[in-house]
Amino acid sequence: MTTPKLNLLTYLPAWSWLKHYNKQSFKSDLLSAFIVIAMLVPQGMAYAIVAGLPPITGLYASVLPMMIYALIGGSPTLSIGPVALISMMTFATLNPLFELGSSAYIEAACLLAILVGLISLLLGIFKFGFLIRLISHPVIKSFIIASAVLIALSQVKLLLHIPLKIDNLPNFFYSFWQYKEQIHWPSLIFGICAILFLLFVPKLLQSSLISRRFNSNWINLFIKTTPLWLIIVAIFAIQKLGLIDLGIATVGAIPSGFPPLGLPIWNLDLVVQLLPGAAMIAMVSFVESISIAQATALQNRRELNSNQELIALGLANISAGVSASFPVTGSLSRTVVNADAGAKSPISGFLSSVFIVLVSLYFTGLFYYLPLVVLAATIMVSIWKLVDFKPFIETWHYSKADGIAMWITFFAVLFIDISAGLIIGVVTTFILLLWRISRPHIAVIGQIEGTEHFRNIHRHDAITLAKIISIRIDESLSFLNINSLKEFIIQEVSNNSSLQHVILNCSSVSSIDLSAVETLEDINIDLGKLGIQLHLSEVKGPVMDKLQHAVLLQQLRGKVFLTHYQAVAYLKQQMQQQELSKSHHY
Amino acid sequence: MTTPKLNLLTYLPAWSWLKHYNKQSFKSDLLSAFIVIAMLVPQGMAYAIVAGLPPITGLYASVLPMMIYALIGGSPTLSIGPVALISMMTFATLNPLFELGSSAYIEAACLLAILVGLISLLLGIFKFGFLIRLISHPVIKSFIIASAVLIALSQVKLLLHIPLKIDNLPNFFYSFWQYKEQIHWPSLIFGICAILFLLFVPKLLQSSLISRRFNSNWINLFIKTTPLWLIIVAIFAIQKLGLIDLGIATVGAIPSGFPPLGLPIWNLDLVVQLLPGAAMIAMVSFVESISIAQATALQNRRELNSNQELIALGLANISAGVSASFPVTGSLSRTVVNADAGAKSPISGFLSSVFIVLVSLYFTGLFYYLPLVVLAATIMVSIWKLVDFKPFIETWHYSKADGIAMWITFFAVLFIDISAGLIIGVVTTFILLLWRISRPHIAVIGQIEGTEHFRNIHRHDAITLAKIISIRIDESLSFLNINSLKEFIIQEVSNNSSLQHVILNCSSVSSIDLSAVETLEDINIDLGKLGIQLHLSEVKGPVMDKLQHAVLLQQLRGKVFLTHYQAVAYLKQQMQQQELSKSHHY
Repeated sequence: MTTPKLNLLTYLPAWSWLKHYNKQSFKSDLLSAFIVIAMLVPQGMAYAIVAGLPPITGLYASVLPMMIYALIGGSPTLSIGPVALISMMTFATLNPLFELGSSAYIEAACLLAILVGLISLLLGIFKFGFLIRLISHPVIKSFIIASAVLIALSQVKLLLHIPLKIDNLPNFFYSFWQYKEQIHWPSLIFGICAILFLLFVPKLLQSSLISRRFNSNWINLFIKTTPLWLIIVAIFAIQKLGLIDLGIATVGAIPSGFPPLGLPIWNLDLVVQLLPGAAMIAMVSFVESISIAQATALQNRRELNSNQELIALGLANISAGVSASFPVTGSLSRTVVNADAGAKSPISGFLSSVFIVLVSLYFTGLFYYLPLVVLAATIMVSIWKLVDFKPFIETWHYSKADGIAMWITFFAVLFIDISAGLIIGVVTTFILLLWRISRPHIAVIGQIEGTEHFRNIHRHDAITLAKIISIRIDESLSFLNINSLKEFIIQEVSNNSSLQHVILNCSSVSSIDLSAVETLEDINIDLGKLGIQLHLSEVKGPVMDKLQHAVLLQQLRGKVFLTHYQAVAYLKQQMQQQELSKSHHY
Repeated sequence: MTTPKLNLLTYLPAWSWLKHYNKQSFKSDLLSAFIVIAMLVPQGMAYAIVAGLPPITGLYASVLPMMIYALIGGSPTLSIGPVALISMMTFATLNPLFELGSSAYIEAACLLAILVGLISLLLGIFKFGFLIRLISHPVIKSFIIASAVLIALSQVKLLLHIPLKIDNLPNFFYSFWQYKEQIHWPSLIFGICAILFLLFVPKLLQSSLISRRFNSNWINLFIKTTPLWLIIVAIFAIQKLGLIDLGIATVGAIPSGFPPLGLPIWNLDLVVQLLPGAAMIAMVSFVESISIAQATALQNRRELNSNQELIALGLANISAGVSASFPVTGSLSRTVVNADAGAKSPISGFLSSVFIVLVSLYFTGLFYYLPLVVLAATIMVSIWKLVDFKPFIETWHYSKADGIAMWITFFAVLFIDISAGLIIGVVTTFILLLWRISRPHIAVIGQIEGTEHFRNIHRHDAITLAKIISIRIDESLSFLNINSLKEFIIQEVSNNSSLQHVILNCSSVSSIDLSAVETLEDINIDLGKLGIQLHLSEVKGPVMDKLQHAVLLQQLRGKVFLTHYQAVAYLKQQMQQQELSKSHHY
């Protein structure tokens, strides 16, 4: 719809602010970058664990992708990086293929990110962005809720320190039953303490401190960065109180330095195996990212091209793949915090990247004593907020079809697995959409007394005529629904032996495909054999343009009328004249 | 849409004529049955060969199915039985699994018919008839043309008497190259003579005899039954002229008697293997049958329930499976001949069945010397008429999307195989349909001077206002296209900084799914943050009913207007008042 501009700024959309940038903006960006980092460090490591990868890769995943997106992405404040859902999908894709923690697994995660990136990139370049909108809200909501349950359960593994299976609920409970004797109680107790810390410290801060009139901005900052404080407290507890002797697993030694750059080893077989997973991750990551980007774009009154977003997301993922990490997308929580903290431009994202590099260069040693259960607790608390059954009830209330799609997705994710769940959900929405389109609303319409309006005779008290039937179809005509119209006409014709004219009101028909045109041609001919004329009324401009290329208009035994009122008036008059000339003959 | 009636005649739809039946009707039915038989005997045997089965099974395939359909089918004159396309699909399904001509192959054909029948039956019972309309006209046309090419080529095998592969074009030419030394010339010459007979005898009859004033009805009868005369001539030539010694293959000994009844041997593995093929055959056979039945139903001014047709077709196929034959459907050519010959009722179909039984009881011996090349010639001549490239040009001219689907189907059938071709064609149509729905026509509309009409500002000279934008979307709103609308609004808002009101004209919106409602809620909130109000106008009754279940109407910052004119008039007045009160303040 927009004409392409040969302007570099079109391809660097986030940089239009540059001319207004000043010292004040930089201060805001610096502050928001700090806050984002305080969230990103624990989240990054935690989501790496969800993906089945070493915690450091979660930090790597935030460096290059953030820089790339800052450069070419459409939303200046969008914070890209590891996200729980995408990490879980990464795990679900890689877990069946490789041993968890093996170097093949880690290599494959990089390859997966590159594939996700390539798919997004190609779809963006060839403007196939629409393909990726195939997921309806009910399906994505249900998918997120069901995945959140699985993600939360996956952390139970760390909490109990037993090798639980988490691909679906039955396997989870079965493996829990198998290993229930081996639960490591110190880890569990430590984990429960961490969960309680995360749940109650923000509440205490909110209730007690605010009443004592501290600066509420700082309180909010504290609340948002609770996981960071928990990490500091936990490291201190493990290291200084000697809790390490209890056998609680910690992050351990992390190689410090820049993210290692390089292409992962790949072969065609592996690419083929990873491709379906990569396609689904690309789809979900785009759906997640675009809605965040759109909200921020609208607030800044800026255009957002979804194909361009796909390209940005694609390059971000490729950069994740070549810098030893895993698939990434826009994070809603961090974007909100970033914007609230006053981020003004992509400089904020840049600064975040730089800080992460500093952390991985100089501070990885700090995490040696960080217990894994603390990261697990962080994930469980943040993810459990997503588990909410109200959407199921609301959706069911609004529409049974959407509700069915939602429940099917939910159960498919929990009882089969995360990938099958998404596919089944998407396929279900399509079948239901096709079902709806194939059952269009078709009404016999009649004239409302004293007006030129024609309405459904079952809803309104309208005038009908014995020899003329007016039919309105409330849907564009295509191969999916034209047969319903044909059946409707056959039925009306078979029930009314005095019928002479069928007028099809096309006011709701926005397009008409060849199958529909040909079926109308058949109907016209078949009705003609019975001496019945087919007429069209209120045909829209674009549809009329289309019909010029078909034989229907030449063969049509009836006429095409501008308004339905004109059609009925003309036919009534014509019939009266015929009656008259007949009576003259006798 | 029809209320169910507890009336036996509803379930025996073809029997409503019974009260008007008389001796004259019976005479018509008897004559048309004779004519149909004269076509059916050669066609049945020929199509059995196409399916890779013994010729006699083609006769069996016409007995029970015809009786069953006559009893419960919706069209009194529809002639059900073996059809070239379905036979080819049967061959394509069974050929990769079993050795041609083996008893396992023959058993599997019965099982396939039963599966086709069960699928149709279940779809009909659960009223899933709509699922089977998934094939658009361009796809089915292209599929038929490409299959006709393959069917014609498959008969080259008999003509040349070499084991050609016919699953796709490359394999055909490759195997032809391999076996080209082994061509059996007497068969080829005999076959060419048969083809010439079929091509020129009807023409000669038409041109010479009509001019000599023979009864043209008899001439037409002769023309329609040319294959039968060819068979008689050929049998005579082989038997009496001693051509058998040349090594021309003949039908040989056929067991006479009733069609053997019984369930084929089956196991779950085989069922699973045959299921995809069976589903496709069910789909194609329904598509073929329903269009024929609809045309005849309309001529008789009778209703036709497509779910009931599915049930009839399902039972017909099950009966084919238990009587040692293969999948069947309605035959267009025989139905036309049957109706033209004056068939008045299902009695005609019954009589045809009875005649076929008589043939298989007493006359199978006649076919001993019938050369297979004659049957091959019959198939080639009848099928080659279907190979026509005009539809490709016409379709391309009407719509590029339909044209693309058509060419993709055509090449997929010829270069991969018949099943893959159909699936690829159907999937292509869906992707193109989704693509179209996801790119709805969205227009900024303005008032036509002096009227209350609002039209597309790019097509008409219409009045627009700086602070109000009127947007019309020409499609029902769903998850597939709501994002296009959102992008459109973001773009318009970003281009017009003085905007205060967005009015969405919903006159073409016939339904709205939850994803669309929620996105509108987001748009409403996001616009609200910018001080812009979202309004709706001309919302249809059913859509308004639906919106009562959503929070959109409560949250909406703007209003819902009955007509677009009212909306603009109200907002203009409101803004003028605000201006006035502002100027009063100063």
